[in-house]
Amino acid sequence: MKQGKQSILFEKTPYIRSCASIVGKKEGEGPLAQFFDKIIDDPTFGEETWELAESRFQLEALSLALKKGKIKKEDLRYLFAGDLQGQITGTTFAMKDIGIPIFGLYGACSTMGESLSLAAMTVAAGYADEVGALTSSHLGSAEKNFRFPLEYGNQRPLSSTWTVTGSGAFIVSSSQGSVKIKGITTGVIKDYGVKDSMNMGAAMAPAAADVIYQNLQDMDWQPEEYDQIVTGDLGSVGREILIKLLKDNSYDISKIHMDCGMRIFDDETQDTHAGGSGCACSAVTLAGYCMDKLMKKEWHRILFVPTGALLSTMSFNEGQSVPGIAHAVILERQ
Amino acid sequence: MKQGKQSILFEKTPYIRSCASIVGKKEGEGPLAQFFDKIIDDPTFGEETWELAESRFQLEALSLALKKGKIKKEDLRYLFAGDLQGQITGTTFAMKDIGIPIFGLYGACSTMGESLSLAAMTVAAGYADEVGALTSSHLGSAEKNFRFPLEYGNQRPLSSTWTVTGSGAFIVSSSQGSVKIKGITTGVIKDYGVKDSMNMGAAMAPAAADVIYQNLQDMDWQPEEYDQIVTGDLGSVGREILIKLLKDNSYDISKIHMDCGMRIFDDETQDTHAGGSGCACSAVTLAGYCMDKLMKKEWHRILFVPTGALLSTMSFNEGQSVPGIAHAVILERQ
Repeated sequence: MKQGKQSILFEKTPYIRSCASIVGKKEGEGPLAQFFDKIIDDPTFGEETWELAESRFQLEALSLALKKGKIKKEDLRYLFAGDLQGQITGTTFAMKDIGIPIFGLYGACSTMGESLSLAAMTVAAGYADEVGALTSSHLGSAEKNFRFPLEYGNQRPLSSTWTVTGSGAFIVSSSQGSVKIKGITTGVIKDYGVKDSMNMGAAMAPAAADVIYQNLQDMDWQPEEYDQIVTGDLGSVGREILIKLLKDNSYDISKIHMDCGMRIFDDETQDTHAGGSGCACSAVTLAGYCMDKLMKKEWHRILFVPTGALLSTMSFNEGQSVPGIAHAVILERQ
Repeated sequence: MKQGKQSILFEKTPYIRSCASIVGKKEGEGPLAQFFDKIIDDPTFGEETWELAESRFQLEALSLALKKGKIKKEDLRYLFAGDLQGQITGTTFAMKDIGIPIFGLYGACSTMGESLSLAAMTVAAGYADEVGALTSSHLGSAEKNFRFPLEYGNQRPLSSTWTVTGSGAFIVSSSQGSVKIKGITTGVIKDYGVKDSMNMGAAMAPAAADVIYQNLQDMDWQPEEYDQIVTGDLGSVGREILIKLLKDNSYDISKIHMDCGMRIFDDETQDTHAGGSGCACSAVTLAGYCMDKLMKKEWHRILFVPTGALLSTMSFNEGQSVPGIAHAVILERQ
C-alpha cells in the first residue's frame, strides 16, 4: 500500500492483460516498426479531419487490445483516457458511443503514466476487474492545436520534436497477464522557469528526475533494481539534464536509461529533428517495444516514466513558463 | 464495493473533512451570496491575466479548505484537479509550486464530480488519508477560450449561460468530517447529436439522466431516498429534458431536483440570461449552499450530479456534435 512519500506498492498487484499499439506511416518506417501491432498509411485514417483521425486511432487501439485480451468491451468497468487536444476532444470523440464509464485525464505527454496509475489503483482496490487505460496523439492535430496547421507548411527548427501519430491502449486486469503493475510513484508539477516552447526536454527533465528520485527513495532501491528506466520524450538535451540531476543526488541511471522520443524515429533518415513527442510516443513504445522485451524476459523489471510539458498556446502566448510533470509506473515480468 | 453496473458503495466510507468556496463579485451579489466563504471583487484577483486570476482562485480555495480542515498542505497525499481551459492550464499554474502529487483531470463542468469520485476511491482504498479535490472556472478565461475575449464586447444571446468565476475545494479524509461520501456512479459519454453550442443544457441533460437512472438502478432506490438531486448547469431547458427523460423511465425527480446553474444568479436583476455554468458553478454551490444544508441537517442525503459539455472551439468549428457527461456522488450527513 502506501510506500514512502509519493508511492504505492500494491498488495493485490494488478496485471496487464493485453495491450495494443497502432501508429502512422512515419512511425511504421522507424526503428521500432516491427514492434507495433498496426501501421496505418493514411494519415487521416479515413476520417475528414486530423482530430477525428486521432480519435479513430484511439478507438482502434482499444478495440485491438480488447481482442488480444480476449474480452468484450462490456467487460471493461472503467476507462482512463486523455490526449493533448484542448478539452481532450480526441478522447471524447473516440469514446462517445462506447458506453463505458470514463474518467477524462489531462497529463500532457505523461498521460499514459497517469492513466495506467489510476487504472492500477482502481483494479488493486477491487473496484473493477478489467479497466482500459489509453492515450493518443496525432501530428496533424497537435501541430494545428499548438503551432501551425500542416497545410501552412512552416519550417521546423532543428530543436523541435515530431509528434507521434498513434495510440497505445492497455487492459489492466485483476487476474490475467504476464506483466504486473507492481507499484506507482505519482509526480508533482515542477517549474524551472523554462520559457522556450521548442525546448520541451529541458522543461520536463526536472519533473522526470524528481519522480525517479522519489521512486528510488520510497522503494529504498538503487537504480540497478531496474533493467531499464524508460522516459517519455525528453530528447537528447532533456536526457542530459535528467542524468545530471540524478547524479547530483547520487543516482547514476546513465547505463539503464532509454528515452522513447530518442528511439521511435531515426533522425538521419527521417528528418524528425530532436526526436518523437506526444502522448502516443511513450504509449506505443511501451505497448510495442518495452512490453515485447518484458514478455521475452529480456527485461525483468522496468520503471516507465512518461513526461509532460504543461502548456497551452494561451499560457505560452501570455509569457508563462512551461512546467513539467511525470508519473512513474513499475512494471514487472512474472 | 462494486454495486451494480456503474456504481461503488464504499465499505470504508470517506468523509468530507472541510471545503471552501471562493467566488467573484457577480456571484457574491447573487441569491447564494451568504453561503460562500469569500467574495473577491477584483475580477483579476490581483493578477495580470484572466487565466492567472483563475489559478489564484483555485489556489486560494484549496488554502482555505486546508485552513478550515485544520491541516497543512503537506498532509495531502494527492490532488485531483482540473478546469475548463485548454490543456487545463488554470490548474497547472495554480498548483505548479505546491509540491503535492497531482492527477490532472478534464471532465468539463462535471469535473467536481470526477475529482470527488477519484478522491473518494483513493481514500476508501487506503491509498491516502487526506486528499484534495477541486476545480475552478472564470468568466474571463472561459469567454476568451471558447467565445470572444471580454474586451471585444460582443452581445450574448438570451440562451447563453454565464460562466461562474470562482473555485470550490474539498478535503476528502479517511477519518474526519460530518458528511460522508457514501458512494459514486461514474458516467458514460452521451451524444444526442446536439450541435448548438448555445444550448448546452440540451447537450448535457441525456448524460445527467443516464447517470441518475443508473444510480437509482444500481442502488435499487427510488428518487425519494434523496432529499435533493443536484445537477450542475443544465439551465431551464436542460432541466425540462432531464425530468422528462427520467419520467419516461418511471422516475419522477421533479420535486427534489435543483440545478446549480438556475440558483447561483438571479437573471431578473443580474442579466445572466440562461443561468450559471462552468466547473465552478456546481463546485461552489456544493461547497457553499448544499454543504450548509447538510451540515444543518436540513438535508440528510443528496445526489450531486455535475454535468459537462464535451466540446472545444476546434470540435465545434469542425461541425462536430456536443456530447455530454455527468458523474454522480452520494453525500450523506452523519
